[in-house]
Amino acid sequence: MINKQRAVVLLSGGLDSTTCLALARQQGYDCYGLSFDYGQRHRSELTAAERIAQEAQLCDYKVVKLDLGGIGGSALTDLSLDVPRQESAGIPITYVPARNTVFLAYALAWAEALQAQAIFIGVNAMDYSGYPDCRPAFIDAFQTLANLATKAGVEGHTLRIEAPLIALSKAEIIRAGLAAGVDYGATVSCYQADSEGRACGVCDSCRLRRKGFLEAGVADPTRYRQL
Amino acid sequence: MINKQRAVVLLSGGLDSTTCLALARQQGYDCYGLSFDYGQRHRSELTAAERIAQEAQLCDYKVVKLDLGGIGGSALTDLSLDVPRQESAGIPITYVPARNTVFLAYALAWAEALQAQAIFIGVNAMDYSGYPDCRPAFIDAFQTLANLATKAGVEGHTLRIEAPLIALSKAEIIRAGLAAGVDYGATVSCYQADSEGRACGVCDSCRLRRKGFLEAGVADPTRYRQL
Repeated sequence: MINKQRAVVLLSGGLDSTTCLALARQQGYDCYGLSFDYGQRHRSELTAAERIAQEAQLCDYKVVKLDLGGIGGSALTDLSLDVPRQESAGIPITYVPARNTVFLAYALAWAEALQAQAIFIGVNAMDYSGYPDCRPAFIDAFQTLANLATKAGVEGHTLRIEAPLIALSKAEIIRAGLAAGVDYGATVSCYQADSEGRACGVCDSCRLRRKGFLEAGVADPTRYRQL
Repeated sequence: MINKQRAVVLLSGGLDSTTCLALARQQGYDCYGLSFDYGQRHRSELTAAERIAQEAQLCDYKVVKLDLGGIGGSALTDLSLDVPRQESAGIPITYVPARNTVFLAYALAWAEALQAQAIFIGVNAMDYSGYPDCRPAFIDAFQTLANLATKAGVEGHTLRIEAPLIALSKAEIIRAGLAAGVDYGATVSCYQADSEGRACGVCDSCRLRRKGFLEAGVADPTRYRQL
């Protein structure tokens, strides 16, 4: 196929971004996967991303090393902070400062170099756990920025920020993903998965995921190390 | 002094960002300097940034390594492309895809972790050489994004993106910097300075800088290797 539209797809190796990739492919995009090694303590998520990218036979795939850990302030990158077992009020300690802004900025740089038409990001406002950079208003603001920030914008070409999961529940995401052929057994969502990708079953991310499979009425293929 | 406001200041080692740092200090901010090692071919600019940061006795200073070079598409990071000697129409080949978006995203992450009130960036729309991410509309869009992207925004605290040079000519920047005590001999603007920081005198950046000193009516302290 010639002249297909190109999309940069942010891929964490978790349930949401893997679904997002499947939807981008379903829409006919030539997909360029982008993952980040930002010192996340859930390393096996990144291993999962690399495996998923390889199996999806993307046009290209990059793992970019980011020095976010040095900035501190999150239980996901600061090993001196514990990942909480209980849901807390407000913005959780697992929030990484400005993470999606940094991820999208990199995706924008690559999208511009590739002359891509879209960036896909698997953010989700329903089950968003209180992260500010998962809200629709944030995505809209980034799209405005993207078209001011780049050559493409100056030259009248428009780049779309696609967040197809933003208004879906976890159960709806799972149903959409299964319809698009996602193997959720290959994805890792747990904030503290072990080196073999087995989930703890108790962190915020695990609880949202389990609830999703329950509500979708499908078997949960997640490998748990405790239940 | 206690409870001073904090600012993250982007520092490239060039004339504009060094002036910007001096203005932030003049305004009484506690300054946190941030530079990027993004594979730029003008390495001596980064060396200059490190020296300027050290002399300014900042509260903290970080050099973040970015993997922008792998994305390609610019004569500043792609060694197979030549830096042009002549001004060209449109957006120049020295433009780095989405560079200021990536820089500001990192600054935002650090500003959030520091609970800073401002980010200073030395962009300049007058002498901007056609870079889309130096326009006032881009800065405004990033400020909107910043306050949607962060905890601060959710909690009602506002982060300002300060671009004090945006409407100044190069001559006006130089006069403001001299009044704030900047030593321009320590700054490096050239796209292809040699390892000792001596400028070529012929690239776009050198030409804008030379013209600035001429128009400001002050001696040009730049060390040139050819004239």
